[in-house]
Amino acid sequence: MFFHRQELQFRSTPDQPDAVYARKLQEVLGGQYGEITVAMQYMFQGWNSHLPGKYRDLVFGIGAEEFGHVEMLATMIAQLLEKAPLGITSDAVQDDPTVAAVVGGTDVQHAIVAGAGARPVDSNGNPWQGSYITGSGNLLADFTANANAEMQGRTQVARLYHMTDDHGVRELLSFLLARDTMHQNQWLAAAVELQEEGYEGMPVPSNFPQSKEYTEVSYQYLNFSDGKEAANGRWASGPTPDGHEFSYHDGPTTHEPMPAPTRPDSRMYGTTDLPNPVEKAAGAVQDKLNRE
Amino acid sequence: MFFHRQELQFRSTPDQPDAVYARKLQEVLGGQYGEITVAMQYMFQGWNSHLPGKYRDLVFGIGAEEFGHVEMLATMIAQLLEKAPLGITSDAVQDDPTVAAVVGGTDVQHAIVAGAGARPVDSNGNPWQGSYITGSGNLLADFTANANAEMQGRTQVARLYHMTDDHGVRELLSFLLARDTMHQNQWLAAAVELQEEGYEGMPVPSNFPQSKEYTEVSYQYLNFSDGKEAANGRWASGPTPDGHEFSYHDGPTTHEPMPAPTRPDSRMYGTTDLPNPVEKAAGAVQDKLNRE
Amino acid sequence: MFFHRQELQFRSTPDQPDAVYARKLQEVLGGQYGEITVAMQYMFQGWNSHLPGKYRDLVFGIGAEEFGHVEMLATMIAQLLEKAPLGITSDAVQDDPTVAAVVGGTDVQHAIVAGAGARPVDSNGNPWQGSYITGSGNLLADFTANANAEMQGRTQVARLYHMTDDHGVRELLSFLLARDTMHQNQWLAAAVELQEEGYEGMPVPSNFPQSKEYTEVSYQYLNFSDGKEAANGRWASGPTPDGHEFSYHDGPTTHEPMPAPTRPDSRMYGTTDLPNPVEKAAGAVQDKLNRE
Amino acid sequence: MFFHRQELQFRSTPDQPDAVYARKLQEVLGGQYGEITVAMQYMFQGWNSHLPGKYRDLVFGIGAEEFGHVEMLATMIAQLLEKAPLGITSDAVQDDPTVAAVVGGTDVQHAIVAGAGARPVDSNGNPWQGSYITGSGNLLADFTANANAEMQGRTQVARLYHMTDDHGVRELLSFLLARDTMHQNQWLAAAVELQEEGYEGMPVPSNFPQSKEYTEVSYQYLNFSDGKEAANGRWASGPTPDGHEFSYHDGPTTHEPMPAPTRPDSRMYGTTDLPNPVEKAAGAVQDKLNRE
Amino acid sequence: MFFHRQELQFRSTPDQPDAVYARKLQEVLGGQYGEITVAMQYMFQGWNSHLPGKYRDLVFGIGAEEFGHVEMLATMIAQLLEKAPLGITSDAVQDDPTVAAVVGGTDVQHAIVAGAGARPVDSNGNPWQGSYITGSGNLLADFTANANAEMQGRTQVARLYHMTDDHGVRELLSFLLARDTMHQNQWLAAAVELQEEGYEGMPVPSNFPQSKEYTEVSYQYLNFSDGKEAANGRWASGPTPDGHEFSYHDGPTTHEPMPAPTRPDSRMYGTTDLPNPVEKAAGAVQDKLNRE
Amino acid sequence: MFFHRQELQFRSTPDQPDAVYARKLQEVLGGQYGEITVAMQYMFQGWNSHLPGKYRDLVFGIGAEEFGHVEMLATMIAQLLEKAPLGITSDAVQDDPTVAAVVGGTDVQHAIVAGAGARPVDSNGNPWQGSYITGSGNLLADFTANANAEMQGRTQVARLYHMTDDHGVRELLSFLLARDTMHQNQWLAAAVELQEEGYEGMPVPSNFPQSKEYTEVSYQYLNFSDGKEAANGRWASGPTPDGHEFSYHDGPTTHEPMPAPTRPDSRMYGTTDLPNPVEKAAGAVQDKLNRE
Repeated sequence: MFFHRQELQFRSTPDQPDAVYARKLQEVLGGQYGEITVAMQYMFQGWNSHLPGKYRDLVFGIGAEEFGHVEMLATMIAQLLEKAPLGITSDAVQDDPTVAAVVGGTDVQHAIVAGAGARPVDSNGNPWQGSYITGSGNLLADFTANANAEMQGRTQVARLYHMTDDHGVRELLSFLLARDTMHQNQWLAAAVELQEEGYEGMPVPSNFPQSKEYTEVSYQYLNFSDGKEAANGRWASGPTPDGHEFSYHDGPTTHEPMPAPTRPDSRMYGTTDLPNPVEKAAGAVQDKLNRE
Repeated sequence: MFFHRQELQFRSTPDQPDAVYARKLQEVLGGQYGEITVAMQYMFQGWNSHLPGKYRDLVFGIGAEEFGHVEMLATMIAQLLEKAPLGITSDAVQDDPTVAAVVGGTDVQHAIVAGAGARPVDSNGNPWQGSYITGSGNLLADFTANANAEMQGRTQVARLYHMTDDHGVRELLSFLLARDTMHQNQWLAAAVELQEEGYEGMPVPSNFPQSKEYTEVSYQYLNFSDGKEAANGRWASGPTPDGHEFSYHDGPTTHEPMPAPTRPDSRMYGTTDLPNPVEKAAGAVQDKLNRE
Repeated sequence: MFFHRQELQFRSTPDQPDAVYARKLQEVLGGQYGEITVAMQYMFQGWNSHLPGKYRDLVFGIGAEEFGHVEMLATMIAQLLEKAPLGITSDAVQDDPTVAAVVGGTDVQHAIVAGAGARPVDSNGNPWQGSYITGSGNLLADFTANANAEMQGRTQVARLYHMTDDHGVRELLSFLLARDTMHQNQWLAAAVELQEEGYEGMPVPSNFPQSKEYTEVSYQYLNFSDGKEAANGRWASGPTPDGHEFSYHDGPTTHEPMPAPTRPDSRMYGTTDLPNPVEKAAGAVQDKLNRE
Repeated sequence: MFFHRQELQFRSTPDQPDAVYARKLQEVLGGQYGEITVAMQYMFQGWNSHLPGKYRDLVFGIGAEEFGHVEMLATMIAQLLEKAPLGITSDAVQDDPTVAAVVGGTDVQHAIVAGAGARPVDSNGNPWQGSYITGSGNLLADFTANANAEMQGRTQVARLYHMTDDHGVRELLSFLLARDTMHQNQWLAAAVELQEEGYEGMPVPSNFPQSKEYTEVSYQYLNFSDGKEAANGRWASGPTPDGHEFSYHDGPTTHEPMPAPTRPDSRMYGTTDLPNPVEKAAGAVQDKLNRE
Repeated sequence: MFFHRQELQFRSTPDQPDAVYARKLQEVLGGQYGEITVAMQYMFQGWNSHLPGKYRDLVFGIGAEEFGHVEMLATMIAQLLEKAPLGITSDAVQDDPTVAAVVGGTDVQHAIVAGAGARPVDSNGNPWQGSYITGSGNLLADFTANANAEMQGRTQVARLYHMTDDHGVRELLSFLLARDTMHQNQWLAAAVELQEEGYEGMPVPSNFPQSKEYTEVSYQYLNFSDGKEAANGRWASGPTPDGHEFSYHDGPTTHEPMPAPTRPDSRMYGTTDLPNPVEKAAGAVQDKLNRE
Repeated sequence: MFFHRQELQFRSTPDQPDAVYARKLQEVLGGQYGEITVAMQYMFQGWNSHLPGKYRDLVFGIGAEEFGHVEMLATMIAQLLEKAPLGITSDAVQDDPTVAAVVGGTDVQHAIVAGAGARPVDSNGNPWQGSYITGSGNLLADFTANANAEMQGRTQVARLYHMTDDHGVRELLSFLLARDTMHQNQWLAAAVELQEEGYEGMPVPSNFPQSKEYTEVSYQYLNFSDGKEAANGRWASGPTPDGHEFSYHDGPTTHEPMPAPTRPDSRMYGTTDLPNPVEKAAGAVQDKLNRE
């Protein structure tokens, strides 16, 4: 169950209206790596968890915080829009080219659809979607997904930091940056602990028997582009993270002829060849029968 | 530039038709973590790269291989569909409930739309989409995304391995599993090298000055769910991966009153209160003016 | 069957070009509550209708009108774009910052994709989609959906009214506002008639036996946020619309322990605990068997 | 802020596994009118609210409950999948046509992607999306949207009730049905109170001056289909809900000639006519100039 | 304006219920090349038309017919669902594996969402979307799009013809096949006429001056795959449709070094190299300044 | 298999930065008819091909080239963004209204998400999706789709040509225009050859027996709009492309009464009439039984 408290985790009020910035801030609210994504992602990982105890408490404990971040951003966006020019023609400032520019750079649905309110969309107006989240049931994979989400998120917030001078907005961003710092560290720590405690290892999923994979190519770097520098990375020689040895190869080490084109049932009406008249006639008869 | 060779990297032919399995295999072709995703993701990371040399060669070198994996899967799917019952009513087998079940479990667009061919969709028929990929320009974030993609992908292939007895299909999957093993190791190795060479560090992005984040909460575990076990993880005490110290807190350590509701321009036609008659009258006058 | 007459229901010609406004107008053409939505929604309700006579005639009678509204808006948009600067560089006015601002605020696909024509998208360029419509077969639910659609639509048109000074555009909007007034009234009237004639009642669906619902909580206001004011609404005490009595409760009146985490088949490769060595060994054996 | 408690509002455990039903239940979790929709919809209405007090408390108070319903359904789905056959080939039961049928009817991503877990998608596997929600800032419109959402939702749950015999599942559904009963009543009550307290009225938005709409057609039923029965409804004569009088008309009462086709700049490369050689030549010259 | 007549263009009633087939039929109702697509495509081409007269009359004349085809298919689907088992558990037949298979193969939203009605989706349940249509303003391009749409559509209907034995359904399909035959012929004829009358020619758009294209490669077949057979087609030598001469080349005839990686502003936080300490220091200073 | 060479097919470097144009160029990279579409479309046609030899070599040979065009455009976009103002506030130029206008017209995700890099989206920020491509297995239909794609693509590039003065950009566009010229010619030539060699003919699919279509209407122009000019086209009289004779008819030549509304199982909870008390009682009894 979820309980809502009518307080925010941090101050979330701008110094002044800025509808263009409100649009930009939508990215970290409703974008691929916005707060809705991490909130939903952690919660689904909890609901699908197969492991009681600290790992499940972890995803629940952070997931609920992230819903509060959604709230802080939505609240901030609504305030950024509150007194901003939103394209109303009779506003005197409308004739000013700077104002025209500003209005041109806004999310016009902020005004038309939401009446100066936040929306569950990204900074280009694409609606948030369930396919942004990851919850596989395999915690090492999922914690890696979480670490990535926090890295992408903090990078986006850092970029947004330089796109405004507003102290109120920057203050909120400084808080989100700090929490992203924590969450990056936390997911990496959790991934380490998970491996140390033997729940999961590399390669993921570690309990699939490697004897069943085609091990000849399991540690080969195969270079399909003509750049030569990749041979110099630690992925091309030396030990692998999971205790084997990397090797470098320029191009594939295996190859096979492409199989012959398929020739499905004639009632699929694809274009096929029939190599000789006999087969053609046979095909015609068969077709005739098929179609009756 | 890309050059195509009419060979496959590995044998990709099933022992027998299986349209239901063809549908399932679509997941690792055109799903969120399918081969189209990694192929496009690595290529976009290369095109947007800011760093010449081995890291860019790496994403190009692997990205091109992944397009070949798309091809192997598409080829396999077409063959799985080639002689399979695809719902044609006059097929004698149609009356058999097992066949009916099979047809019910297929991707019906394989037959109706593609005429027994592969499609750029996932196993539920959702079209592949550009929002699946990640390419931020920050390589530590992106390599973490790549490691996750290979972990999710290998987990899905491992699951698919048990959903068929077909030796030809399993052979292809064993190859893909091995390459996913390599690619997981490789991206983790690349992430390590990137940090050792000083290009990037934790927290990502590492060159954003941490003095500008609200450091009080940068290493606090804040528990927003009532499970108590999360206090026992290495994310709750002890050193953080980036060299600080974790602390544990039950709930938020900061809080703020929620700001007052916004009251945008009356021509947004939202529902607002006007607290007293004087203001109401003033509002009416202003409205009157606004609307002329 | 549908017949098209090359006339419009109302004058739909702007006084002057305005590509920025053309983009905004797309919202009520191809947005969530645009004219395509209501046209398609009413028609699907008619095709899926289970009730002959006046209710079916009603959805058909209005649905066809709405297709004509789609046409008026598309025609208007094409005219707004006709002589507008659409980003062509050699246009002298291009150097003017106001013009640059205008071009920045347009839907660039109007020019690049449609060659100065209307498109089936919303004001942020999201394509119209079938998931916007509602047609459940339950007419009281659907007429409520229709009333809402007309309310949202009229609100959006009202906002758009203030975003232009163009008399031609405003004239068209004044017509659409009037028809939305009619349609709001009409759907509310139809919802009343449906209940009076006994086809449907509250709660929807009224012929599901309420004895099968968990009636203890059927009329309880359960407050999951810490605001106290909600206790003062008519939803917190007094008679319910369907003839029962509301009661107010601060938080849930029922609760249950969360079930234990699931532990699916090991071949799903999720992360699980195996609580003791015996079980671990047994699991390993079982796994071994499973994988052969 | 949101706080999570590791308890459920109601018992949510099935008697036995049923992967086909798990897929169906996804509709009321992640579909157009599923619990994610109402949870997010009410919260966004709260964050965008312009009116402090009981109406805002109401949307927050119910929105948080709905997130708990998301949790109950996700938990139920994971349990329905826990021991169900999910397409693993070596399972003995696989040869049974009934089992084959069952596997054919599942959401195959439940197994391949989520490892036997719930997902934020509908019963056809379409990801949940932000465009499902409604939050306009106009509370009478939004409460009507809410009433509709609860009506559609309860209708879907009622249908799902008959698609299973499982007592555990039916028990959960009986609880959801009861809460939907409450929420239908509540939103209708709130819509009445809002009007009685003068915050909003018909037609929505009520503070847009009706003098600016084309009032000649504001209360006309215009019949664009050839069914004659619609004239007999209370939408065709008698008083309108907002105090005017309906009238019935067979077809439009207004009409206008369609404007001439647009002829945009020649550099849009659309197909146009140039009516005579003089103009054609002029056009060619102009084109020549344009292109330099 | 559109007027609706409560008649169908052709008999559209099945002999018996078939929910699995109803799902399949959704493809030609709401799929990429279904009837909604062509109806909307032709209408938008009309509304965006720049040429009065017969070409515009043509797109309007056929577009309105296609809306009637949408109606015939929706009506048929509702009837196919009317008495079909839709997953209601207490239906005796449910125990029959064939029935289970059938239910598994249905669109479960037909029952849960639409209550046994048609929906604006394709046969995999993907909602119809505006991005399916084409309307560029260039009529030769658009008529080619139309010819393709009718070819894809007729191919799909031909496939569907063999997936049922129902005489009523086949009768409707035979009608749709005939109309697709007409429409294929018609769009090809219109494309010819358009060119003969000089409105448009090859290459499209024909009034873009070819002197501005890089004509060296305008008629070169460049082979980027290693198959040698493509040299034998009429696209590799001999006259081009627009009166030039094809030539064949194995691989590209032009090539350029890839430009250096970009190095954007440091506040984008991408990963870059700074080649020597001096530059690094300078960068640090610049960064310091930037961030203040 | 695909091999990548770190060279471009043509020079792809702008004279100067232009973030607004970078956004526009996204259309031909990741739009409905952008290079990703044609690259993927041709490759899927190859993988699904049923015909070995020159036609399959053709789709492979061109498909691989198109991936190189994706690369040229992505590279160009990254360079256009490299030094452009991307909304960073402290940039001095920010106060200039022209700069503000420019920033307002950019794709803000270019900066926030990609850190000044290209993305797989169109010019309105909609992600590329698999439903853009066409691959039916019927080569005459698919080559027509390909011809259309190249026509739409060349039209868009021609429009984009006039939206910039940058010589570097125009040079790249001149190359793409030339290749589109080639590809239009090539697909039309291939469509001719396919018919001459007897693999396919009109109407598509030509091997579906026309005796099974309702031939009475196979060559009738049916006018559903009231424009009279369409009678004057070559689609209204004279020979059809496939050797029959067109005829013109004002409106439908066939019509049928609409079937009665469906009345599904009462547990679908749709709204139905029950015509008399006897049936109503019977229904009630049946309902009672059903629900137990």
